[in-house]
Amino acid sequence: MKKKIKFNTSTQLSVNGERSRTFNLKNLRFDKHGLIPAIIQDYMTGEVLMLGFMDVVSLKRTSKLGRTCFWSRSRKEYWIKGKTSGNYQFVKSIAYDCDMDALLIKVRQVGVACHTGNRSCFYRKIAKCKI
Amino acid sequence: MKKKIKFNTSTQLSVNGERSRTFNLKNLRFDKHGLIPAIIQDYMTGEVLMLGFMDVVSLKRTSKLGRTCFWSRSRKEYWIKGKTSGNYQFVKSIAYDCDMDALLIKVRQVGVACHTGNRSCFYRKIAKCKI
Repeated sequence: MKKKIKFNTSTQLSVNGERSRTFNLKNLRFDKHGLIPAIIQDYMTGEVLMLGFMDVVSLKRTSKLGRTCFWSRSRKEYWIKGKTSGNYQFVKSIAYDCDMDALLIKVRQVGVACHTGNRSCFYRKIAKCKI
Repeated sequence: MKKKIKFNTSTQLSVNGERSRTFNLKNLRFDKHGLIPAIIQDYMTGEVLMLGFMDVVSLKRTSKLGRTCFWSRSRKEYWIKGKTSGNYQFVKSIAYDCDMDALLIKVRQVGVACHTGNRSCFYRKIAKCKI
């Protein structure tokens, strides 16, 4: 099963139902470190799995590989999610928000997303509402 | 219907099924601007609505009000979501991730989350996967 992602930095892409519009990745608002937060969500269940950061290079790699690639702020290196664990995240779609400063990437998660063994990195609650 | 949120900076809270553990908000890893990204998700549908930023003050306000309160990086002010539009986000739960540097807040969204009139801020796709 070969995966192909329509994704380009400058070609005409169908955005939001409009016929075509030139979209350039550089229109995204990266922070002063050149990073943009990327929310990773299970495309089937809707579960939010993690939040990572990408720069233009890792976003292009994510596109090319069809698997998420992040910039690790702590290790200061590119990081293909699942490369060592096998827990890859296969990309289903990439969306950006109204301010163009955040991404929402829907994925098919192999295994678990969190290094602790939990399915999602958000496995601890600090508040629960009582109605 | 009165809403009450269990939330405190220092009291014993039941975290992740363990009996009790002292949780201090200051254990969260805020960035050098004192901010932490907060993913806002519809608690019913699982739809990711937006990404905002909070500091300790806005997180405490979120807790106290039971509605999301953010720090606006562009306007440099606190911002109770829905205060002008009426589109409040009533907090259902707040979780933090394994690195303690991101929040996932599940809410009941009144109306729409995005100022454009879209339900979610992530209404535009730049990539769609073909399998």
